[in-house]
Amino acid sequence: MTGLPNHVTISEVGARDGIQIEREFIPTERKIELIDALSATGLSKIEVSSFVHPKVVPQLADAEAVLGAIKRRPGVRYAAFVPNVKGAERALACGVDELKTGAAASDSFNRLNVRMTGDEFLTAIADMAGLVNGTGAVMIGVVGTAFGCPYEGDVSVDRVLRIIERYAAFGIETVHLADTTGMADPGKVQALVGRIRDEIPEPRIGLHLHNTRGLGLANALAGLELGIDEFEGSIAGLGGCPYAPRAVGNICTEDFVHMLHGMGIETDIDLDALIAAAGLAEEIVGRTLPGMVMKAGKADALHDAAAMDDR
Amino acid sequence: MTGLPNHVTISEVGARDGIQIEREFIPTERKIELIDALSATGLSKIEVSSFVHPKVVPQLADAEAVLGAIKRRPGVRYAAFVPNVKGAERALACGVDELKTGAAASDSFNRLNVRMTGDEFLTAIADMAGLVNGTGAVMIGVVGTAFGCPYEGDVSVDRVLRIIERYAAFGIETVHLADTTGMADPGKVQALVGRIRDEIPEPRIGLHLHNTRGLGLANALAGLELGIDEFEGSIAGLGGCPYAPRAVGNICTEDFVHMLHGMGIETDIDLDALIAAAGLAEEIVGRTLPGMVMKAGKADALHDAAAMDDR
Repeated sequence: MTGLPNHVTISEVGARDGIQIEREFIPTERKIELIDALSATGLSKIEVSSFVHPKVVPQLADAEAVLGAIKRRPGVRYAAFVPNVKGAERALACGVDELKTGAAASDSFNRLNVRMTGDEFLTAIADMAGLVNGTGAVMIGVVGTAFGCPYEGDVSVDRVLRIIERYAAFGIETVHLADTTGMADPGKVQALVGRIRDEIPEPRIGLHLHNTRGLGLANALAGLELGIDEFEGSIAGLGGCPYAPRAVGNICTEDFVHMLHGMGIETDIDLDALIAAAGLAEEIVGRTLPGMVMKAGKADALHDAAAMDDR
Repeated sequence: MTGLPNHVTISEVGARDGIQIEREFIPTERKIELIDALSATGLSKIEVSSFVHPKVVPQLADAEAVLGAIKRRPGVRYAAFVPNVKGAERALACGVDELKTGAAASDSFNRLNVRMTGDEFLTAIADMAGLVNGTGAVMIGVVGTAFGCPYEGDVSVDRVLRIIERYAAFGIETVHLADTTGMADPGKVQALVGRIRDEIPEPRIGLHLHNTRGLGLANALAGLELGIDEFEGSIAGLGGCPYAPRAVGNICTEDFVHMLHGMGIETDIDLDALIAAAGLAEEIVGRTLPGMVMKAGKADALHDAAAMDDR
């Protein structure tokens, strides 16, 4: 395959995007335990919480407590989601390395998600970026519903490009395209990323993919073939979809790392440690999670033919 | 994306490769009900049973009864797996259109699976092909463990090529490469299919992929990019892995069709009818199956923003 990167950076989002959909409150010390386990896997970026109003996402009301107690490993950058200036101030006060925020490409989605239009939210993002620039922390600009909106359907590529241009004007150097509800397919990934590369080559582009309809890793492959080398994933596939209670959410980090290593792409991640962390995630939420390698074992973990013969 | 086919043929294997791992015997009339529902979806190839010894796969001991009672739809080709000449004779007596058989590329696997070496089994396949040639029915040659063996690990590409050459010498015109226990990755698919194309361009190549480690549709994408236009899939993702009780088996037909249609690739299949058949499969086996689109809905099935706003 041509165009593949030699190395991929994975930003782990299970403790935020994954856990936020859990109905039962997960005790702060268990969140810390999971994040500390993830810090020991070789992951270089870990999203640990969200500085939203506690009434909006009660599950993540303990953001300060989590940030204050995790064992920060040198070389790991800790990230958090921030919806507004107040959230950005709280995140900076906790020493968050990467602040993620974003407008959706679809206004119907923005109106329901942040009670603002995309343009109103972009003004708020400009204010957040002004606060972050110069602090040593970095702001990541997310474009939600970049591959489709559950209310509007197809999203205009031009609209996505315009948002990225605004982010660039705010001094944001990394943009994550989010397939918020899993509507992408490999053709859509290639079309959107290709257009961005042609027209706005400056920002570093990352992909936040969901596996809602089983296409998460196929979409990741389409991104890899365009040289994309930054992806978000969720340990054990933690997460879900607010529109379909039986559906899954984010792509599973260890399944993706397993694919990358099989293809000879480096991640600096210890896959065995990651699989162990996936087991811990399952134990913490108390139910089976979508990750597959944790159930099937790695492709290179062989079975004993003699033992099978004796069955 | 370049090199993609305009049309893909899907051979549905749920009623054979999917159902054979079920512990509880599925009543013959329910198998027939599922196959008849599949026949009405636009699928052009449906594998309905296996003519193995009933002691080996008791679940499929009713092959003759199933073949005798399904409503054969014009234009649909009905297939069955056959392990030996006796099985091929039984299948031909039932009017099976496509007989599938195959040696694994790994001898450890052959020894455990058919109690023969690959070379011994190839002799049996020559005899089966001799029986089938000229009857109007067609023989499909499967190469099992083509992307890796759970006992031996990596499988030699040369060994796979040699088996395909033998098949061609027997008059077999279509070869299916089977990722029997889900050890492939997109790089392996591209490497093997590329070598075959370079060295033995004659046979039509199809892919039988498993989603054991979550890579089924990513591997399918790698095949599509090489122009592969015949794939096997299992309705609702019916099936499993004998080595890992929590793992899944075949790629899910309706999830794959959903991906293809999203990418503008034709299948002649009615996706809604296929999703309904997946629901029937879940009802028949009485538990949740791995299919994802049946849980999340199609990507173009939109939600009502006003209704969400009222929550």
